[in-house]
This record gives sequence, C-alpha cells and structure tokens, in this order.
Amino acid sequence: MGFNQRLLSIIEAPVFGRFITGVIIFNAVLLGMETSPSLMEAAGPLIVTLDSICLAIFVFEIGMKLVATGRRFFANGWNIFDFIIVGIALVPGGAGLSVLRALRILRVLRVISVAPRLRRVVEGFISALPGMASVFLLMAILFYIGAVIATKLFSQTFPDWFGDLGLSAYTLFQIMTLESWSMGIVRPVMEVYPYAWVFFVPFIMVTTFAVVNLLVGLIVNSMQDAHHAEDEVKTDAYRDEVLERLETIERHLNERANSKK
Amino acid sequence: MGFNQRLLSIIEAPVFGRFITGVIIFNAVLLGMETSPSLMEAAGPLIVTLDSICLAIFVFEIGMKLVATGRRFFANGWNIFDFIIVGIALVPGGAGLSVLRALRILRVLRVISVAPRLRRVVEGFISALPGMASVFLLMAILFYIGAVIATKLFSQTFPDWFGDLGLSAYTLFQIMTLESWSMGIVRPVMEVYPYAWVFFVPFIMVTTFAVVNLLVGLIVNSMQDAHHAEDEVKTDAYRDEVLERLETIERHLNERANSKK
Amino acid sequence: MGFNQRLLSIIEAPVFGRFITGVIIFNAVLLGMETSPSLMEAAGPLIVTLDSICLAIFVFEIGMKLVATGRRFFANGWNIFDFIIVGIALVPGGAGLSVLRALRILRVLRVISVAPRLRRVVEGFISALPGMASVFLLMAILFYIGAVIATKLFSQTFPDWFGDLGLSAYTLFQIMTLESWSMGIVRPVMEVYPYAWVFFVPFIMVTTFAVVNLLVGLIVNSMQDAHHAEDEVKTDAYRDEVLERLETIERHLNERANSKK
Amino acid sequence: MGFNQRLLSIIEAPVFGRFITGVIIFNAVLLGMETSPSLMEAAGPLIVTLDSICLAIFVFEIGMKLVATGRRFFANGWNIFDFIIVGIALVPGGAGLSVLRALRILRVLRVISVAPRLRRVVEGFISALPGMASVFLLMAILFYIGAVIATKLFSQTFPDWFGDLGLSAYTLFQIMTLESWSMGIVRPVMEVYPYAWVFFVPFIMVTTFAVVNLLVGLIVNSMQDAHHAEDEVKTDAYRDEVLERLETIERHLNERANSKK
Repeated sequence: MGFNQRLLSIIEAPVFGRFITGVIIFNAVLLGMETSPSLMEAAGPLIVTLDSICLAIFVFEIGMKLVATGRRFFANGWNIFDFIIVGIALVPGGAGLSVLRALRILRVLRVISVAPRLRRVVEGFISALPGMASVFLLMAILFYIGAVIATKLFSQTFPDWFGDLGLSAYTLFQIMTLESWSMGIVRPVMEVYPYAWVFFVPFIMVTTFAVVNLLVGLIVNSMQDAHHAEDEVKTDAYRDEVLERLETIERHLNERANSKK
Repeated sequence: MGFNQRLLSIIEAPVFGRFITGVIIFNAVLLGMETSPSLMEAAGPLIVTLDSICLAIFVFEIGMKLVATGRRFFANGWNIFDFIIVGIALVPGGAGLSVLRALRILRVLRVISVAPRLRRVVEGFISALPGMASVFLLMAILFYIGAVIATKLFSQTFPDWFGDLGLSAYTLFQIMTLESWSMGIVRPVMEVYPYAWVFFVPFIMVTTFAVVNLLVGLIVNSMQDAHHAEDEVKTDAYRDEVLERLETIERHLNERANSKK
Repeated sequence: MGFNQRLLSIIEAPVFGRFITGVIIFNAVLLGMETSPSLMEAAGPLIVTLDSICLAIFVFEIGMKLVATGRRFFANGWNIFDFIIVGIALVPGGAGLSVLRALRILRVLRVISVAPRLRRVVEGFISALPGMASVFLLMAILFYIGAVIATKLFSQTFPDWFGDLGLSAYTLFQIMTLESWSMGIVRPVMEVYPYAWVFFVPFIMVTTFAVVNLLVGLIVNSMQDAHHAEDEVKTDAYRDEVLERLETIERHLNERANSKK
Repeated sequence: MGFNQRLLSIIEAPVFGRFITGVIIFNAVLLGMETSPSLMEAAGPLIVTLDSICLAIFVFEIGMKLVATGRRFFANGWNIFDFIIVGIALVPGGAGLSVLRALRILRVLRVISVAPRLRRVVEGFISALPGMASVFLLMAILFYIGAVIATKLFSQTFPDWFGDLGLSAYTLFQIMTLESWSMGIVRPVMEVYPYAWVFFVPFIMVTTFAVVNLLVGLIVNSMQDAHHAEDEVKTDAYRDEVLERLETIERHLNERANSKK
C-alpha cells in the first residue's frame, strides 16, 4: 500500500470524519464568540489562537486530501467548495478588510459537505436549478426592461429609488417581494405621476405569476421524481410478468395447434 | 425558386436568427446605456445612431418576413408581437412623450420570440390563463363590489384611499397583497369607523383564498399535463398489447372448440 | 299545462336567463355610477329610478320563481342566496343606515348564481371548506389562546393593540399575515418586554405552518379529485375487460377439460 | 374487576369524556373573562373560584388516569401533554410571575387531546416535522452564519438591529418573512454601507428558496400518503387477481399437455 493509499484510508476513516465535524462545530462556536466584545476582552487572545489552530487543522486536512487524491481532488464539487472556503480564511485580511474577516464564518458551511444528509438536501436544491433556468432568464429580462423604463421615467424625480439601473433593479426587487410597494414606493410616485400604477401593478402581477410558476415547476418535478422512483419499478415488474405469462400461454396454444396438424 | 421563397430561406437560416439575436442584445445594452447621463454626455450621438441602426435592421427584417410570408405573417402570434413592438419605436415620440420613448426598451422582449426555450415558457404561461379565467372573473366581481362598498362608506373621510372607484380598487389591490393593510390602511380607518374590520378582514380572507385556488389550479393542471404526456403513452401501449393477446388466446380457443364439433 | 308549469318554462327559457343577466350587469354599472358625486349631480334622479326598476325586476323574477316552484324554492342554496341578496335591498335604509345602502351592491353577486361557470367555481370553493374545518378550528383555538395571553401580558402597556380580546385577536391576525409584525408591533413591544419574541416568533411559525397545511390539503384534495374523475374511469373499464376475458378463457378450458372426461 | 379496571372504565366512558370537554370549554370562557377588567370588578371572586374548581377537576381527572393506568400513563404523548399543561397551573405564580398566570390559558389546548379529529390534525403536523429536519438544520446553519456576518459588519453602526448574535438572528428572521426588509432595514443600512445588498438580497433568495422547498416537500409527502392509502390497495388486489388467473390458465394448459403425452 503506497503512501497515497495510506493517506486516503486515514481520510476516509469514520473517526477522522467525526473529528473534522467536531472541529467545524467548535470553530463555529469560536467565531460566534468573536462577535461578543465582552468575551473578546476577557479571552480574546485565547479565542483567536484556538481559531488559528482550527484553521491549521482544516488546511492540513485539505492538504492531505489533495496529496492523496491528486488531480481527482478537483473532480468533486464539494472538495472545490471546501478548498475555496478554507482559502478565503488564508487571504490576509489587513486592517480595513473587515468583510473578508467576516467571511471566515463561511467555514461553518463545511458542516454541509461532511454531513451526508445535509449534502443531499443541498444537492437536491442545486439539481432543481437547471429546470428553473428559463424562468430565471425570463425574469432577468423583465427586470432589465422594468429597470430601464423606471429609470427613464422616474430617475429625475426619485433619484434615491430609480436613480440608475442598479437602484431601479433593487427597488423593483423590493416591489416584487411586495415589501412596502404601495405605501412606500408607488403611492409617493403616483402623487407626481398619477398613472404610475399602469407600470407597477402589471409588473407585480407578471413577476408574481413568474415566481408562482417557478414554485409550480418545483412541485411538479419533485412529485414526478418521487412517483417514478417507487411506483414505476413495481408497475414495470408486474407488467413484464403479465406479458411474459400471456406469451407463454399463446406459445402453448400454438404448439398444440401445430402438433395436431 | 421564387423571390419570396429565397427571402424565406434567408430568414429561416440559423445564421440570420443568430445575427438578429445579437442585434437585439446589443440594442438592449444600448438602451440601458441611454439611462446613464454621464455616458450620454460622453457618447450620446454615437449611442443614438447605433440605436437607430438597430431599429433599421429590425424594420428591414420584419419587412422581409412580411414580404416573404405575405398574409400568413399575421397568422403567427409571435410575428404580431414583433410587429407591434417594433412599431412602437417608429411612432414619433415628440418632446413630451417620454413614455413612448421609454417603451422602446420593450424591443428587448423580442429576445423571447427568437429564443425557442423562452418562447415555450411564455406559451406555457399563456396556456395557463384560460383555465384561470373563471377565478379571474370572480375576483373582478369581488373587487368591483368591494370598491363600490368602500367608496360609499369611506370616500368622505379618506378621499386619498377611497375617493372614487379607481382609488378604492387600487387600495383594495394593495390590501390583497397584504402590503401595510393594517398599520397603513385599516387601523387608521378603524379609528373613525371601529367596525371597518368587518369589511376588510373577510375581504382579505376571500381574495387570498381565491388567489390560493388559482395557485392550486395551476399546480393540478401542470401535474396532469406532465402526468399524461409521459406515463399515459406507456400505459396505453401496455394495455393495448394485453387486450390484443387476450383476444388472440380466446380466438385460438374458439377455433379449436369449433373445429372439434 | 298548469299555471306553475307555464311560469317555470318561462323562467327556465334561455332568453329569460340572458335578460336577467343583462339587468344584473346594467344594475352593477348603475350602482357604480352612484359612487360618483358629479354623475349623481348631473343625473341622480334618473340613476336612482333605473336602479329601482332593476330592483323591481329582481323582486318580480324571484316572486315568479317562488310561485312556480313552491316549497322546492328553498331547497336550492342559490335561490336562498338570491332571496337574501334582493331582500337586503328592500330593507328601508333610513337616513343613517348608509351601510345597508352600500350593501345593495351585493346584488351584483347574483351574476354568480346565473352564470354556470362562476357557480361551479364558487361551489368548488365551498366544497373545499369542510375538509379544512379541523384546521380552522385548531387555528381558532390558537388565536383564542394567543389573544388571552397577549391581553394578559400587554394590555396595560399597549392598550391600542392588546387592550381586550378583540383587539388582541385583530393584532394577532395582522401578525399572522406578516404585515408590519416586527417593525410595527413586536419591536415596540420588545422595548418594554425584551422577551416578547418568545411569544410572537413561535406564534408566527405555528400559524404560518397551519396555513401552509391548509394549502397543502387543498392541493392534495384537488389533485385526487382531478385524478379520480378521469383516469379512474378508464382504468376501471380496462380492468373489468381484462378480468372478464380471463374468466372467459378459464371457462373455456374448464369446459373442454370436463367434456374430455 | 379490580379498582384500577373500574377506574379505567369510568375514564373511558363517553359521558366522562364529554363532561371533561365541557369543563375545558367552560374554563376557556372563564379565562377569557378574566382578561376583562370590568367583568373582574363585577364578579372577580366568582370567576376565580370557578376557575379553581375547573383546575381541581382536571387535577382529579389526571390523578384518576395516573392511578388507573400506572406506568403506562407516560407511554402516551397526549397524557404527558395534559400532565404538563395542568402542572403549569399548579406552580405558585407569586405576585410578579404574571407570565405563568397567563400560561394557564394553555389548558385550553387540552381540547385538542380530547377531540379525536383535532388530535389527528396535530399528529399529522408533528409527523411532517421529521421529514423537514434536514432543511430546518440547514436553515439554522444559514441563520447562524448570517447572524455572525451581520453582527461583525453592522453591530457598530446599527446596534439596535445587529448588536449581538440574538438581535441579528431576530432581524434576519424578520427579513426572511419579508417584513419591512427594504424600507425598514436594508435601505437604512445601505446609506452607510452601499454594498449591503450583496449580503441581504442573496440571504432573502436562499432562505425563501429553502422555505419553498419545505412547502414542496410537505406537498409531495401528503400527496404520496394520500395516493398510497387508497389506490394502491385497489391496484394490488387487481394485480393479484390477474396473476392468479394467469397462473391457473397456465397450469391448466400444462396439465393437459402432460396428460396427452
């Protein structure tokens, strides 16, 4: 057994998996504690040190996997996922880049890649996306058109909401979620442009209808998947048996008819 | 091959379709850039010229199609759709009609008519509408009744919300979407008419229930369509085979019985 | 043919039905016009007179039906529905009872009872209610418990929202619809009682879950109804044929076996 | 018949069940009346006394059940439920613990444990939970990560909304329900951090998608349960019959073939 084989058998041992899961959860707690100023004042250096140790363990683990599996490492989406998430933590945050330091908590997402049940849920989510691609593209087109129209018509009077394409798209997203669409946005707009509802009400109806169709598509797909997997197997087995038996009977009768001649 | 035939073969060539799609997307970007004052200051005349060229290409394309297909042009809903959308852009906008100029972005919708997948999604949406007609009609009746009642009762005290039938219908639509229905509308109304909830709460329940039924209807229809298309064909083929074989066996037995007599 | 029979044949004539539908729609327009002060000033007496004529026609129609069908009149729910709706309009409104006058618009609902398609939709809605009774009862219990707890805890500090059981139930209904639940109600409450979320967040989760279950129940029921009605008939016919043919074959074989002995 | 047997037969008598249901409803009304200051002033001592009598009846009933069934009492989840709910009422409230006194209304929940239909609905709800466990766990992880990021980035500037992990989680829950997410929270945050939408908009999309998947899972499960229970039995019976008859026919034919030899 070569070195790579030995490494692989270590990585794939249940004990090793459980240990890594434990480190992830422990690290999640540490990163949560870092948000508390009083805890950081009391035990800041300890928390930071423990966090660094956790990170070191992750780097070591991924290094082991990388060495053990070689090029195949990047054939697995979850490995790439782990690689990027741990990579983010290694980027030097600097003093100003508080965002990058905040993103270190994304390491907790690794708990998904080590827990099979969570993995399956996320894989289910992702497998539903391609079927929704057409509707998403359609909604992107609707949002682009809506943003251009809203910006052209209202950017002068309401620069905070419709000042440029980005602001308009954000405001239209808010309107699509129905959050304060009328009292917050459309009623004030209608005080200047009384016919603004001609744009906004159909926009709400069309985008809501598109969202509903996404939901319907999801339900129908899940239902069919569930249906096929189980019933179909049973039905196919039954049908094969019936047809086989009918053929046997026919053959019997034919043989007899021939033998009589 | 006549002139019309040659024109048609050009129009239906994949290269031509891809070229038109490219022009549509390029035009969409141009129209987006027109919303940026800084870009317009820097390169306004260029953008406007390119936009005119795109428009000219569309007019030329539709003209070609019109000549090639003759009267059949208007038999296809998507052709009429393209015709109207390009037609809007040709209407002289004038100085004041900024709305018509804003509507030029609707040309981006042409991307739907040239992309088969998007076309199918939109056709799916439209094919779902007739089945929802009864519920829509019912909701229109409910809104009309609600608007008349609300206008009669509250127009004096709350002219901004319930001043006439149109304002009332808009406010009731807002209430149906549950946006600020209580804190924004019903609580203030209840300060004057303490029993106003007797009207609004049932209105919310009934219209929400109707919307939910629309959704349920959509799901059931999609499910059945999906179900039929696939399973049914297979089941019918199986059933035909079973019945045929059973008939054959019976015929065999009958023949033998007759030959014995 | 007796008098009642002749009356009945008149009432059931398609021309008569179409005439009544026309009167209902005409009356709906009139009642809509009554909400416009300028129209009422210009042609008030005419509108009111026409409205009275419409009402007279309805009274006469229902009288005819009542005479023609006798006691069976009240066996049909839609007849009772028409009777009550027209009856409301006959109650003398008086000067102060503007509510009763506003309710005259409910006459428009008669359009449902005369249009078979709308009738079927409403009957579908009503037939879905019994299956939802248990969940409704459960939600009523949850609302009662929630209202008692909220009133006991918050009535002193927030009398406008939780002053008595009725106010609390209304506020909880608003919270269930998620309208301004946090910024409008719970955050202000939490400023006085920091642990108020322990009550409100679970309340939202449980009631939303109950509503979702109503929806799921509706979908499952509709799906089964749709499923049964169509497929089942076909499947049953097929199955009966298969079993019949198998029996025939068996009988054949048995007869032959017996005749040989 | 021993003493325990006699007790059990009393408890399981329909009359006894109906009496307890009556006491529960009467007690619910009493606890509702306690929220009215005017009623308490007029008949406070009477209401409190009646309430105590109801409580005594419950304690006595549960005591009887406990004696009659012995250890098996705690094998039934509904018994434990009743035990805890009545137990809460026995905890001495003291002067300050108004919360515990408010919780006495939870006794009304006992109506669920005595009404079989409501019991089944609640059991249906609870049986749906395990299937949702993975998605719930995933959402808990998302909320934890979101809360840590939001606290790190925004706690300094918006201590009321994102001051610590708990406040951030509450605010994110509000955002997930779409309540005032934009006008109330994200727009103010974006005035300080213009790119805050990069965090919030994906958060909304991902959590909403997860909630939708919960719903889809619920629908698919209910559908399958409903499907299996009914159709399957019928289909299985039919299939068994077909296969049995085919076997009989084959056996017949084989026997004849053998007898001829």
